[in-house]
Amino acid sequence: MSDRPQTPLLDRVQVPADLKGLSDRELRQVADELRSETIAAVSETGGHLGAGLGVVELTVALHAVWDAPRDKIIWDVSHQSYPHKILTGRRDRIRTIRQKDGLSGFTKRSESPYDPFGAAHSSTSISAALGFAAARDLGGASETGHGDAIAVIGDGAMSAGMAYEAMNHAGHLGKRLIVILNDNEMSIAPPVGAMSSYLSQLYAEAPFQSLKDVAKGAVSFLPEPFREGAKRAKDMIKGMAVGGTLFEALGFSYLGPIDGHDMDSLLPVLRTVKARAHGPILIHVITKKGKGYAPAEGRPDRGHATAKFDVVSGEQKKAPSNAPSYTKVFGETLVQLAAEDSRICAVTAAMPDGTGLNLMAERYPSRTFDVGIAEQHGVTFAAGLAAGGMRPFAAIYSTFLQRGYDQVVHDVAIQRLPVRFAIDRAGLVGADGATHAGSFDTAFLANLPGFVVMAAADEAELRHMVATAAAHDAGPIAFRYPRGEGVGVEMPERGEVLEIGRGRMIRQGARVALLSFGARLKEVVEAAEALEARGISPSVADARFAKPLDRDLILTLAREHEALISIEEGAVGGFGSHVAQLLAEEGVFDNGLKFRSMVLPDTFIDQASPADMYAVAGLNASDIEAKVLDTLGVAQMGRRA
Amino acid sequence: MSDRPQTPLLDRVQVPADLKGLSDRELRQVADELRSETIAAVSETGGHLGAGLGVVELTVALHAVWDAPRDKIIWDVSHQSYPHKILTGRRDRIRTIRQKDGLSGFTKRSESPYDPFGAAHSSTSISAALGFAAARDLGGASETGHGDAIAVIGDGAMSAGMAYEAMNHAGHLGKRLIVILNDNEMSIAPPVGAMSSYLSQLYAEAPFQSLKDVAKGAVSFLPEPFREGAKRAKDMIKGMAVGGTLFEALGFSYLGPIDGHDMDSLLPVLRTVKARAHGPILIHVITKKGKGYAPAEGRPDRGHATAKFDVVSGEQKKAPSNAPSYTKVFGETLVQLAAEDSRICAVTAAMPDGTGLNLMAERYPSRTFDVGIAEQHGVTFAAGLAAGGMRPFAAIYSTFLQRGYDQVVHDVAIQRLPVRFAIDRAGLVGADGATHAGSFDTAFLANLPGFVVMAAADEAELRHMVATAAAHDAGPIAFRYPRGEGVGVEMPERGEVLEIGRGRMIRQGARVALLSFGARLKEVVEAAEALEARGISPSVADARFAKPLDRDLILTLAREHEALISIEEGAVGGFGSHVAQLLAEEGVFDNGLKFRSMVLPDTFIDQASPADMYAVAGLNASDIEAKVLDTLGVAQMGRRA
Repeated sequence: MSDRPQTPLLDRVQVPADLKGLSDRELRQVADELRSETIAAVSETGGHLGAGLGVVELTVALHAVWDAPRDKIIWDVSHQSYPHKILTGRRDRIRTIRQKDGLSGFTKRSESPYDPFGAAHSSTSISAALGFAAARDLGGASETGHGDAIAVIGDGAMSAGMAYEAMNHAGHLGKRLIVILNDNEMSIAPPVGAMSSYLSQLYAEAPFQSLKDVAKGAVSFLPEPFREGAKRAKDMIKGMAVGGTLFEALGFSYLGPIDGHDMDSLLPVLRTVKARAHGPILIHVITKKGKGYAPAEGRPDRGHATAKFDVVSGEQKKAPSNAPSYTKVFGETLVQLAAEDSRICAVTAAMPDGTGLNLMAERYPSRTFDVGIAEQHGVTFAAGLAAGGMRPFAAIYSTFLQRGYDQVVHDVAIQRLPVRFAIDRAGLVGADGATHAGSFDTAFLANLPGFVVMAAADEAELRHMVATAAAHDAGPIAFRYPRGEGVGVEMPERGEVLEIGRGRMIRQGARVALLSFGARLKEVVEAAEALEARGISPSVADARFAKPLDRDLILTLAREHEALISIEEGAVGGFGSHVAQLLAEEGVFDNGLKFRSMVLPDTFIDQASPADMYAVAGLNASDIEAKVLDTLGVAQMGRRA
Repeated sequence: MSDRPQTPLLDRVQVPADLKGLSDRELRQVADELRSETIAAVSETGGHLGAGLGVVELTVALHAVWDAPRDKIIWDVSHQSYPHKILTGRRDRIRTIRQKDGLSGFTKRSESPYDPFGAAHSSTSISAALGFAAARDLGGASETGHGDAIAVIGDGAMSAGMAYEAMNHAGHLGKRLIVILNDNEMSIAPPVGAMSSYLSQLYAEAPFQSLKDVAKGAVSFLPEPFREGAKRAKDMIKGMAVGGTLFEALGFSYLGPIDGHDMDSLLPVLRTVKARAHGPILIHVITKKGKGYAPAEGRPDRGHATAKFDVVSGEQKKAPSNAPSYTKVFGETLVQLAAEDSRICAVTAAMPDGTGLNLMAERYPSRTFDVGIAEQHGVTFAAGLAAGGMRPFAAIYSTFLQRGYDQVVHDVAIQRLPVRFAIDRAGLVGADGATHAGSFDTAFLANLPGFVVMAAADEAELRHMVATAAAHDAGPIAFRYPRGEGVGVEMPERGEVLEIGRGRMIRQGARVALLSFGARLKEVVEAAEALEARGISPSVADARFAKPLDRDLILTLAREHEALISIEEGAVGGFGSHVAQLLAEEGVFDNGLKFRSMVLPDTFIDQASPADMYAVAGLNASDIEAKVLDTLGVAQMGRRA
């Protein structure tokens, strides 16, 4: 444990209202203490550090100027909200962040009235803020009242079309709405896209606006009756905002850029905006991710999501592991295949490191495309690559693939284009909690005509599935695999191309067949071994494919066993549902079969360790064992711990 | 049938290459003849007229200048592609458009090599074109070769974030890519959004660029070695393109606006771009939807999708109908409820007429939000409205809700916000074909924790479900209903609030229970009546809810019948799968139950009448009857026609 920093002034702030009596000098001190407290807390718990450190001054300034929870401060993604949480009555629990029964690593409506809109995926904040602004103007009932709606959004999040859609609508509606563009020139990955260059250029052309300029520009925010004329004000702000025309084209007033670590800039600008803004306004704030903590500054890998670390050296205290991560196995296998096949290329949506495509980007930069936080475009771009004769792999986390679902259906599936989907973070993911769980992909992909849907039981299987996908030109194909390390099986030198729609028997037993789809196989085998002690010897099969199903395997298992239990780390509607459909259509149920389908439960599961989350989900070995006993009607006294 | 127009020059054009020998004067004549032929054809078949008429000259010019299929011309949405189809070897089948076994109403890869990328949903074309451009530069294998990639996209489609994502990426990559912005200031609905105002302003400031200006601007497209310097060229084009800075900020060169009906402008501009473009370029073309056909000009309702019509008067030959459409029932019921509840508001994504929200917009304009073609934003904006104390209805077609899926999961479901989803066009939709089918919504919604998912069996049920949704503040709720007219039941004055998770018995029978979810109920009842003649009297129930299921009803039906058959107009993974999961968990299969789940088949079904499509799908009364007989093991000689 680190020594707790001295924070005399911060200690007096329980809620944002406590900031109201403080002088600007004292607010600066609160910011400094808040930074120390944030670093100290994250060093104990792990979590997102850099993003929060970048907005310490902004957080203090926002809460000093506006009145939350009446004013709605909406943090985009919200992994930068730790300082906000500390200032809004949650400091006593900040060292439980991202842990079981602790604070969420993101904002969460159920956690605090100061979190008016939760987040975790990016680029939702402007839409949500506009919704609040519209509800306010329509007299919507809000327990906390209705004031200003303020979205704080990073430059990386601006690469998502959703942010643009929201700005386009906000500019059209013309309602008072405040968007703070937190430009740290470093989203998770180095930023991509023309917007990013544009923002850099804005800053290059006018490093920071002086207070005098800001005050001059603020004339344009005067409400109508006080202005000499809209036209003149517009000309004035145009003169001031040297490069903000892109935002102005979308109907926003533009103010900036201003130094986001200088309270003497932030406070007067925010006060002026609060007093005078009408219509939508964008305030361009420049910040530094990891600001004030040397080991994190300029280090996205340290600054983004970090394990517990030593405050002085910044060294992470991560437990060593023997088995490679699934992510790494995917990345390495893809590079291996790409070396032999120049048609293989890859698409990531701003997650080159998270998906393992950093390896591909290093070796084959021209064949690796980072499209930004833009899953819709990324999927259709991959479809275009496939139509143009390439073999694209779109590597997108399960939860983020939801962002590109229509494109998967409309551009890939209907056209039968051979896009390969590498779906990392399938199943429960641990500390990131419910928003990042990969629960639904099997269900939303396996009912698409012509799709092949696989799940890897272990890291060797993943290697085979990458090879299988590379070789599959007949249509779209997806393979899902979990977060974290593999199970430690021996790795084949090369992946084999699997036969499409063919599973494999793992062990032959009797009475009950356990049919696993995906990485729960280890738990299934463990359950089978435990059942041996009770005189029950289950058969175990790895289905490998949710689509097409291995009909022969499944019907044989059904015929030869009294009970058949499917297991998957996904929601109902996926693998087990397809198995049930097959069994029903084949009349297998007509004469009786003890069929059960173990799926994720019908609830969003809060963050904890993956094992704890699977315990809540009822998908650990002991749960599978209990399910077998229950299904067979065997008494469960002395149930295994 | 109309008299066929005289088209002597067009008759000589079988494929685009036939345009190559023609003079500019002759190309103008081809365009005129192509317009007459398009009007004549659509008058016989019905379909999208206005969009095609707006791009007649552009179509001829594109095919005269570029070399399809080597050059990839990608039509966004592609309901404007009828003239393109006529020019690319499909004139002989143009009068089969949107009919069973006929041409698709959209571009389609399987239909022609001149359709390099199919479409139907909007705003995909830039992503696809960029994919082709990248594949070309990587040496991707294409049967038709690789040339230029050209996206033709409307101003309405530019409100979608996906288009912005694609431009942001294209500007970053800097590859040669041609985007033609077809600005007709009239997407399906009057355009909304700040972008739309911006485009109008561009045109207002510089009505049309003169050829001299264009030639001057074209200097900037000279490839590097020929230029005096990138900087100077950039300054020059900046001088020319008075207002294109928004596109320039995204890394595009901007050219325009030019008159899209003036071949003397179009041809030289396109030739110059073809000869000299490097990097991404946007050509801003102004056109008029319905151009050249007086009854369609300025009439989006006539011009968009039309029934067969009289060429002279423009009067549509639509069969009268007695029952109101589901769309109208939804719209009227919502207005009725909104009169009594000021918290009710509505969100549409550019489809006020299609969703019936035009009625709401007329009566309660301040409570009706058209967000543009922006489903992602629309869903989260609705979530913000709900969080702000309103009762928002998001009215989005099933197929388009796929565009906002992550927002449904992340912003609505996880936060349990009471957004009401009115899901029109559920099931098969007829002439729009596979791309517009509403097949997957039950599957992708019913596995979301906390969601309520309903389907209306008829128009009276829809009225009840609108009322039920309005009253449901506990979390998200969705109700689905099909395209077209209701079944003609008596309409209640007011909708009743249904008990959540409670179905209803329609008829009590024996041996087999038919459990219907949605508007197939009419076919189910018809099947039941036909079975009476064979001495089988099925029970029939309307489940109403896929989530939560009416457990009592379903388990009782299972207990009291030899067979239980679920019927829905949706893909596997939806209602039937949830029923199977319940039956499995309750051990109902253990001792035998003849369970079957009738769902949409595992194939994308091409356009036809809805009844024909349901025949292909096997979900008509005769199919249900046959399924009962088969399940009960009754011989089916003399099967009913």
